Amino acid sequence: MISVDYSKVLDFINLNDLPRIGQEVTEIHYMLHKREGAGSEALGWLDWPIMDHKETIAKINACANRLRKISDVIIVIGIGGSYLGSRAGIEFLDNYFSDKKPEIVYAGHHLSSEYLCGMISHLKDKNFSLIVISKSGKTTEPAVYFRILKQILESKYSKEESKERIVVVTDPKSGILRNMANKEGYESFDIPENVGGRFSVLTACGLLPLACAGFDIKKILKGAEMAYQNFLNPDVLKNDCYKYAAIRNILYRYGHKIEIIANYEPKLNSLSEWWRQLFGESEGKNGMGLFVSKVGFTTDLHAIGQYIQDGERILFETVINVQKVNSSFYLPEDKEDADGLNYLLGKNLTEINNSALIGTMLAHIEGGVPNILINLQELSEEVFGYLVYFFKKACAISGYLLGVNPFNQPGVEAYKDNMFALLGKKGYEDLRKKIKQKGL
Amino acid sequence: MISVDYSKVLDFINLNDLPRIGQEVTEIHYMLHKREGAGSEALGWLDWPIMDHKETIAKINACANRLRKISDVIIVIGIGGSYLGSRAGIEFLDNYFSDKKPEIVYAGHHLSSEYLCGMISHLKDKNFSLIVISKSGKTTEPAVYFRILKQILESKYSKEESKERIVVVTDPKSGILRNMANKEGYESFDIPENVGGRFSVLTACGLLPLACAGFDIKKILKGAEMAYQNFLNPDVLKNDCYKYAAIRNILYRYGHKIEIIANYEPKLNSLSEWWRQLFGESEGKNGMGLFVSKVGFTTDLHAIGQYIQDGERILFETVINVQKVNSSFYLPEDKEDADGLNYLLGKNLTEINNSALIGTMLAHIEGGVPNILINLQELSEEVFGYLVYFFKKACAISGYLLGVNPFNQPGVEAYKDNMFALLGKKGYEDLRKKIKQKGL
Repeated sequence: MISVDYSKVLDFINLNDLPRIGQEVTEIHYMLHKREGAGSEALGWLDWPIMDHKETIAKINACANRLRKISDVIIVIGIGGSYLGSRAGIEFLDNYFSDKKPEIVYAGHHLSSEYLCGMISHLKDKNFSLIVISKSGKTTEPAVYFRILKQILESKYSKEESKERIVVVTDPKSGILRNMANKEGYESFDIPENVGGRFSVLTACGLLPLACAGFDIKKILKGAEMAYQNFLNPDVLKNDCYKYAAIRNILYRYGHKIEIIANYEPKLNSLSEWWRQLFGESEGKNGMGLFVSKVGFTTDLHAIGQYIQDGERILFETVINVQKVNSSFYLPEDKEDADGLNYLLGKNLTEINNSALIGTMLAHIEGGVPNILINLQELSEEVFGYLVYFFKKACAISGYLLGVNPFNQPGVEAYKDNMFALLGKKGYEDLRKKIKQKGL
Repeated sequence: MISVDYSKVLDFINLNDLPRIGQEVTEIHYMLHKREGAGSEALGWLDWPIMDHKETIAKINACANRLRKISDVIIVIGIGGSYLGSRAGIEFLDNYFSDKKPEIVYAGHHLSSEYLCGMISHLKDKNFSLIVISKSGKTTEPAVYFRILKQILESKYSKEESKERIVVVTDPKSGILRNMANKEGYESFDIPENVGGRFSVLTACGLLPLACAGFDIKKILKGAEMAYQNFLNPDVLKNDCYKYAAIRNILYRYGHKIEIIANYEPKLNSLSEWWRQLFGESEGKNGMGLFVSKVGFTTDLHAIGQYIQDGERILFETVINVQKVNSSFYLPEDKEDADGLNYLLGKNLTEINNSALIGTMLAHIEGGVPNILINLQELSEEVFGYLVYFFKKACAISGYLLGVNPFNQPGVEAYKDNMFALLGKKGYEDLRKKIKQKGL
């Protein structure tokens, strides 16, 4: 499915670093699997790929088929972990400029009024359905968008039909959305209590939108299961997933404060966004953690390539390469060679792109930027499932190596509290006073 | 047009820092305007807004109108500065989910074969035209895409009609594209020799695609002219543009190594990409410079918000706020208040978004992240022109403050050389041998 090449890092670390950190990694491995570490109440994702999901898969596929039949547009309402995973998967697997029906559209992942208005006029004369994804149902962005879009839906369809066009993915037992689903009879799916948002892509959170987009979710879980089996070895030297965690930790200790995830295929851009949440939210705490950033090459070689090559030497790159793409295109002949490109004849675009990748890695390494290379066999459902599990487990190991709880996100609450206070929500009166005293 | 609020930075710097750096800024101001600094052969952009562009504007508009009439799709081929500026402007001004004709599509900004194949099938049964933008005409990505798309165009239309469907933006006198345009009789526009790629958005580079998308380029230049006039004061305390340059430099000296540009309106996402090239490529040299990163809020508050709040304290944020949006949407009533949002009744989405902005700034400042706030009056052509000039001039001052030549990009060549060697281009035989010896 994937292979990882760490050879372009060796010049930047000590030969003993990996064996030295290996003991620590092995201990963390056992702590993780015995569920003895911080945040281990949120380890539902760990054995997820080897659990039996037959029934859920059948139910998701049935629901997706139903929605696909009645919808020109399916709107997926969610933010953070309830948004990034499904989008990452769909863009990973979909064709560019796809005019497939139904169209998958995202909402509730910000508060833009402009976006909402554009969407509403886009929906005119189209049949649409809503999938609303939120564990608590309380998160402001998706809740606001859901209330608005639900009203539009209900003004377009009969009460009965509206109910068939709303599907809820939320906590199995409690919360606003669960109560709504129970009361109104919406079809619903569970986000298990013990799976955090950014670790939820292999639950209905990610799988329902992916199935709606026409992809084979069984294969995604199959890929994740292979990753589960392949990354069980407690020995860092024999476990590429743990090695990724260890090496990023070693590089961080050496002062590489920024990890850039790079790809050469824009289909991976949303995967990079998902990755950024996974690692940024898991590790960025207590004044520590790698700052995670993403680039799409070769586009960004003409944007921040200069900085990477020659700016502050506080970076390293994790480069994702797709080995086999679905389509390849040879440069056509031009007898006059007016553009001077004939030296590329007989080479397809993928080979040229691959030379850019190798050439860039060489240049960046020479410029002082360690490079980790992750090769993906192809852009398939199995590889997607495999890759997300690889990153999730690496993230858990990496967070523990850093000494943080990789499964909480206390810092995300701060802005919400201020926002609630400013908006006059009940229970935030004291904070509101405090803010107003500051003259804001 | 715009106002800048530096009050949320003052707690992080010394009272004397600004006056102290002021002398330096004033000297740089005179050096810049007298064209005595490093790279001053590339200062064509500086007085650009007060030069007479009537003729060019008329010619661009005539060409755009012609292309708009004959095209369902206009493909803009370019990378880096020949791509980011026009895309930034078009997304800044356009509606979401716009199904306006012609559709503007980008190409040659990477080497993805998958993208090309998707685009080709998208073009089927559609009338299309090509705008190819490249100063030298030599840059691999646009050159490859241009050769391929030109052949497809020529197989669809007659020789004569094909020529009318190709427009070239390139060097006024020499280079591959200029020669092609002369020989084939393509309509063409100039990229002045003394304007570098990332400073070229107000030339035909940016303006032709913007006019093709239906926007008023005269107003864009008008906005830039206002910025030109407003940011002429050599005194840093009386010049918001210079203050931006000075403050980011001061913060950098205090160890804030990363500048994050943040917005609360996804229409600004491509502007942030443009900004990232502008500053990253201008300053990231000699082992120095701020690492530039972008986020879109509130989306990314649920992705790297945790890191910003609580990770390594090496950041600051430049937040762009849109004061007046074109559309606003009030939360509809729900008598049962099943989602608990009724406390927001009477507030429109923009006010809620604005509370998120203020709440986030407060939280991040409290978390140790200085915040610069740039308020945009609205999303109009004038503001776009004003803003890009603001950033361009700030970038020049900032680069000189850092002690680098803000107008070159020597580090971008390194990957290209390796790539050419790997692809077997003439003149790169020695480098090819060297690379092969390394076993790559």
